[in-house]
Amino acid sequence: MNFKNIKKKVIPFAVVSTLAISSFAGGAPETEAKSHKGIKGNDEIKNVIFLIGDGMGPVYNTAYRSFMDDKSTPYMEEVAFDKQLLGQQQTYSWDHEESVTDSAAAGTSMAAGIKTYNGAISVDMEKQEVETVLERAKKEEKATGLVSTSQVNHATPASFGAHDESRHNYNAIADDYFDETINGERKVDVILGGGTKYFEREDRDLAGEFEEAGYSYVTNKEDLMNDDNEQILGLFGEKGMDKMIDRDEDTPSLADMTTTALDRLSKDEDGFFLMVEGSQIDWAGHDNDVVAAMSEMQDFEQAYKEAIEFAKKDKHTLVVTTADHSTGGFAMGRDGEYKWDPAPLKAAKRTPDFMAEQIAEGADVEETLNKYIDLELTEEEINWVKEAKQAEKDKTTEIDNAIEKIFDLRSGTGWTTGGHTGEDVNVYAYGPGSENFIGLHDNTETGQMVNDLLIKQEDDDDEENEDEHDEDDDEREDD
Amino acid sequence: MNFKNIKKKVIPFAVVSTLAISSFAGGAPETEAKSHKGIKGNDEIKNVIFLIGDGMGPVYNTAYRSFMDDKSTPYMEEVAFDKQLLGQQQTYSWDHEESVTDSAAAGTSMAAGIKTYNGAISVDMEKQEVETVLERAKKEEKATGLVSTSQVNHATPASFGAHDESRHNYNAIADDYFDETINGERKVDVILGGGTKYFEREDRDLAGEFEEAGYSYVTNKEDLMNDDNEQILGLFGEKGMDKMIDRDEDTPSLADMTTTALDRLSKDEDGFFLMVEGSQIDWAGHDNDVVAAMSEMQDFEQAYKEAIEFAKKDKHTLVVTTADHSTGGFAMGRDGEYKWDPAPLKAAKRTPDFMAEQIAEGADVEETLNKYIDLELTEEEINWVKEAKQAEKDKTTEIDNAIEKIFDLRSGTGWTTGGHTGEDVNVYAYGPGSENFIGLHDNTETGQMVNDLLIKQEDDDDEENEDEHDEDDDEREDD
Repeated sequence: MNFKNIKKKVIPFAVVSTLAISSFAGGAPETEAKSHKGIKGNDEIKNVIFLIGDGMGPVYNTAYRSFMDDKSTPYMEEVAFDKQLLGQQQTYSWDHEESVTDSAAAGTSMAAGIKTYNGAISVDMEKQEVETVLERAKKEEKATGLVSTSQVNHATPASFGAHDESRHNYNAIADDYFDETINGERKVDVILGGGTKYFEREDRDLAGEFEEAGYSYVTNKEDLMNDDNEQILGLFGEKGMDKMIDRDEDTPSLADMTTTALDRLSKDEDGFFLMVEGSQIDWAGHDNDVVAAMSEMQDFEQAYKEAIEFAKKDKHTLVVTTADHSTGGFAMGRDGEYKWDPAPLKAAKRTPDFMAEQIAEGADVEETLNKYIDLELTEEEINWVKEAKQAEKDKTTEIDNAIEKIFDLRSGTGWTTGGHTGEDVNVYAYGPGSENFIGLHDNTETGQMVNDLLIKQEDDDDEENEDEHDEDDDEREDD
Repeated sequence: MNFKNIKKKVIPFAVVSTLAISSFAGGAPETEAKSHKGIKGNDEIKNVIFLIGDGMGPVYNTAYRSFMDDKSTPYMEEVAFDKQLLGQQQTYSWDHEESVTDSAAAGTSMAAGIKTYNGAISVDMEKQEVETVLERAKKEEKATGLVSTSQVNHATPASFGAHDESRHNYNAIADDYFDETINGERKVDVILGGGTKYFEREDRDLAGEFEEAGYSYVTNKEDLMNDDNEQILGLFGEKGMDKMIDRDEDTPSLADMTTTALDRLSKDEDGFFLMVEGSQIDWAGHDNDVVAAMSEMQDFEQAYKEAIEFAKKDKHTLVVTTADHSTGGFAMGRDGEYKWDPAPLKAAKRTPDFMAEQIAEGADVEETLNKYIDLELTEEEINWVKEAKQAEKDKTTEIDNAIEKIFDLRSGTGWTTGGHTGEDVNVYAYGPGSENFIGLHDNTETGQMVNDLLIKQEDDDDEENEDEHDEDDDEREDD
């Protein structure tokens, strides 16, 4: 496939804005889909914080509530998300006609309001670039930010800040963050997450270029917290960051990154657009690792609380929170038993991946398990891990799977796939305009609504403008 | 266990009515749980239709939309439910502290507004009877109905119209429908579903007793449609009714039963309460049978449409639709593939159960599969069924599983359990008062709200009344 075939004309956001939005008319609600009505820009809204729990299907939300529950009280305590549940969104992409999406297609739907194929980074079915809400916000001279726990050029943040025919062109996507400008300005002011590998390359020192252009560049928590530059690139891992329960003190949490992003972005008088991704809920799902899933849900909830806290004080910020799809076929129930018990999951001090790596490198099985799991393990359970340690190949994976099996069976967790699943995902919204998110929408409608609420409609006159793009992207990885 | 220990004092509904309801305040929605606020009875509401899709977890709703989708259009068509999605409800019961519910505990939560143990039919943790919304409605001299595709004395309808320490006491539950009276009247006017086995018994001819008391008793579709008695018992199967795609023309659909129930109940000037259950979505889930699941979703959607149609014309009817829990760990995705394809499911003209029974009784494997499945089956697929036919024991089950495997693998359907799972379920509402259901609620709150909206609060003075109960229930099955 020749990426040079990508046409560089950007389809402006408003042109694709023909999808429906729902209306809720008091006593008799009725969502009308595909009605070609638009919603007006909301004068009360100056800022949007768009939080995406990657892979956070509805069952992750219920399981996390159960995980956080105080069992000494008769009713289950709510978690922060629960107070703002307003609806759901459909997630299917145009791969296999209308079927299970990946993060790139779903990210594009939410960033640019269109359906596309799996793997597409804000390009349409013809691989033509489509304008994103982040780009629209920058055109309006708002500050913009992308925060994730994956590498910052991974599919979801990439869909907001880059264009590529393939999510796998990581270097080209990172280049987009620097090379693509809007009205002569870099389009993303705050970039926080993982991915030094893609910004400190042999062929190009992107991090250095960002610094030369006036950005701060930080790679640990202390430097992040002490910096107050309004433009910043912060990378806290070679690719993805460590999972919350595996992190050392040099690594910021998603909440740390979110608050520091909000501090900077809120200095802009024109307002801001910030996308925050809990990236590794999905990675935990792919790995069928319920311990890591709960770790990453907690990291995401802490960031969510910061966003809501900011919006409560600010009063001109719309917070929209959803997922791109669900992952793993995660089920709170397996093998006929009517029980899902989070207690064994709370006993884990590190993820199975973390423990597996130490054991594969030679650490003693029993010692390692006892160090990081606060449970009386049975001899059988310990033997599963010992046997896995004898594996001729994929030793770390085999050990990881054996440790995960302990948690799956003890908690009653089931899985059906290492990939994604197709069910609708929850939508949470808070702040002015949030009532628009009541009911069921398509993910393209969610994207449309976020755009239409943030961007004032009278500004649509300049929608025919084309962005400047750097054609010099011969360095793209191809895989 | 001695059922004689059940105390017969009924706890009135209003006494347990201390749970919270949510409020949606325009731009800044916030659901406050457990706030001890009540909602006022709504003068606009005369009738409530409460539809329960047993086992209808969120993934069933998405999968059914995909199943019904016209693939020749780029966007997915909505199904009837989608227009009224307003929120979700938590389903956990007090079994294993706060864990996965069964239909009895969840039915009790929705019927009587309290949490209880799995197996409880509108009795609390101390096995004390609790008043149900159907009983409250009857006290208000409203007409009442229970419609299901399971036997009518199965857990969900039983939770609304009976009280028992165990859902398994089927005969005693059927007896309750006749013996328990309110102000001298039978409490359920319209009873439609399956279950001749429990109403035409050797020890008691309940059907005959209902007829003597003025009810019509019908056992086929024609008689049901031609009857116009306001009190009727209609039973269309020995236990559960056949699944939709397996039914003969003598058997009414859930929609047929719903419309005929509405015809009768709406004659009452005081209004009515009707519970309609799509019972066998759950049974399909227990069987891990995705063909049957789609069949029963379709049957339920047709009934749902009739309920909405009625409410649209009537304007004084609140329609609330939800599930009691999810079943099977059903996933739209398995084995790493990013695809869920409903086309093979549409090719089935009968359920795997139906085909398996014929094959187990001696019918030719290939002939039977070709007759009922409109697909080119591979030799491998046919051989799975042929091998299953050789099974020494559980032959029908083995054949059924082999046929289900064909549909699972072709569609990309995964399962984790033969039991229930714990995720929150969707809540749909239409009509006056429906705005109360926006957001996340506990299933006890859903029950409270349905009660509080239907029953006018000024009538609460007589809440201390106790029902008359027949103590003569020595005939209960014990299992």
